[in-house]
Amino acid sequence: MKKVDLRQKVLSENEKIAIANRERFAEAGTFVLNLVSSPGSGKTRLIEETVKALKDDYRIFVVTGDLMTENDAERIGRHGVEAVQISTGEACHLDARMVDEKLLKRKASAYDLIVIENVGNLVCPASFDLGEDLKVLLVAVGEGDDKPVKYPPMVRASEVLVITKTDLMPYTDSDPDVIEENALRIKPDMTVFKTSSKTGEGLEQWIDWLRSQLTAKKPKPHKP
Amino acid sequence: MKKVDLRQKVLSENEKIAIANRERFAEAGTFVLNLVSSPGSGKTRLIEETVKALKDDYRIFVVTGDLMTENDAERIGRHGVEAVQISTGEACHLDARMVDEKLLKRKASAYDLIVIENVGNLVCPASFDLGEDLKVLLVAVGEGDDKPVKYPPMVRASEVLVITKTDLMPYTDSDPDVIEENALRIKPDMTVFKTSSKTGEGLEQWIDWLRSQLTAKKPKPHKP
Repeated sequence: MKKVDLRQKVLSENEKIAIANRERFAEAGTFVLNLVSSPGSGKTRLIEETVKALKDDYRIFVVTGDLMTENDAERIGRHGVEAVQISTGEACHLDARMVDEKLLKRKASAYDLIVIENVGNLVCPASFDLGEDLKVLLVAVGEGDDKPVKYPPMVRASEVLVITKTDLMPYTDSDPDVIEENALRIKPDMTVFKTSSKTGEGLEQWIDWLRSQLTAKKPKPHKP
Repeated sequence: MKKVDLRQKVLSENEKIAIANRERFAEAGTFVLNLVSSPGSGKTRLIEETVKALKDDYRIFVVTGDLMTENDAERIGRHGVEAVQISTGEACHLDARMVDEKLLKRKASAYDLIVIENVGNLVCPASFDLGEDLKVLLVAVGEGDDKPVKYPPMVRASEVLVITKTDLMPYTDSDPDVIEENALRIKPDMTVFKTSSKTGEGLEQWIDWLRSQLTAKKPKPHKP
């Protein structure tokens, strides 16, 4: 009698496509980030700063998700990198198929870095793997320092925490150290950055770390 | 042959319960608000200010929804009103049944005002009627003035817009008038308030309006 491993995971349709995406990215040596946060935590702004810092050294492609509007892709496209919008209609998250379809006409290998800006939502995107290397969670100063405790599935799903808008500290009752502690209580091995896209605080550390990740994934970038 | 009206709406389970909730509230003369926003827009804080201003004149009950933690109900309970938490687990919204169950043991008629704080989310709560009188959408200064344009279903579902954190105006590139314009483009008849729970700006208008709504629903409150 053959033994069947009951623990064997039955993969959802999304997981299957996410795995295929991940394989394609790995083959191409493309590093892929999936940015998640509340609406208004500064995802688009952080991507703009990231693009400005890295576009001369790396080939970057940005995918932005939103219910409606092309605002974010337009904002990012102004910096001279390719940016496309995915309108999710009523869906509160991107899924692996949407990302796959946006990449069908493009070869993943044409890019060193793909940044996916998910729909602003602290619940739904936690459950949908897109095939990214890392999920980056943004929490803004002033949003409520207990946000990581209130949305633990999203914290557990993310490898990196970027605390944004540190420039607002003097005007709010918010303390980035408390946000960090709350997140690390749920996921102790998170990599944490404290940044302000307005003053530039902490962006150098974020960019340096990104460069090291890019080098680890593909030692020699294509772009001169 | 009998004519069947194909436009007749088939009610979902949630809609049926929401209608029952609404009937119960109407019979009791209880005014019910459903507060929706991004995580961190200041729903709990606005409820605290509202409770402080009205608790001597009205019997208030607060229901707060969150994935985890009882933080919000505890915060509000400190002001001497009844507050209960609904933990939604992984669900990104409250539904009519959850509200119904939290009220089963309490008679709606025991309260003049019920404030429901929904899960922080600009997508999911738009689709779930709880039986409230009005949905109140909060958008904070600094969250991105284009939020109403990016989340039109939530704007369309809401009768009232409270722009919060106006004290942060000098430190952000945000303009409450632009938030208002963006919302009114989608839903021209919204009632709009511009408030800061920190400085107190605009709270008097919000409270006065609430009093007028309470009086309209039940001319003589029970509380002395």
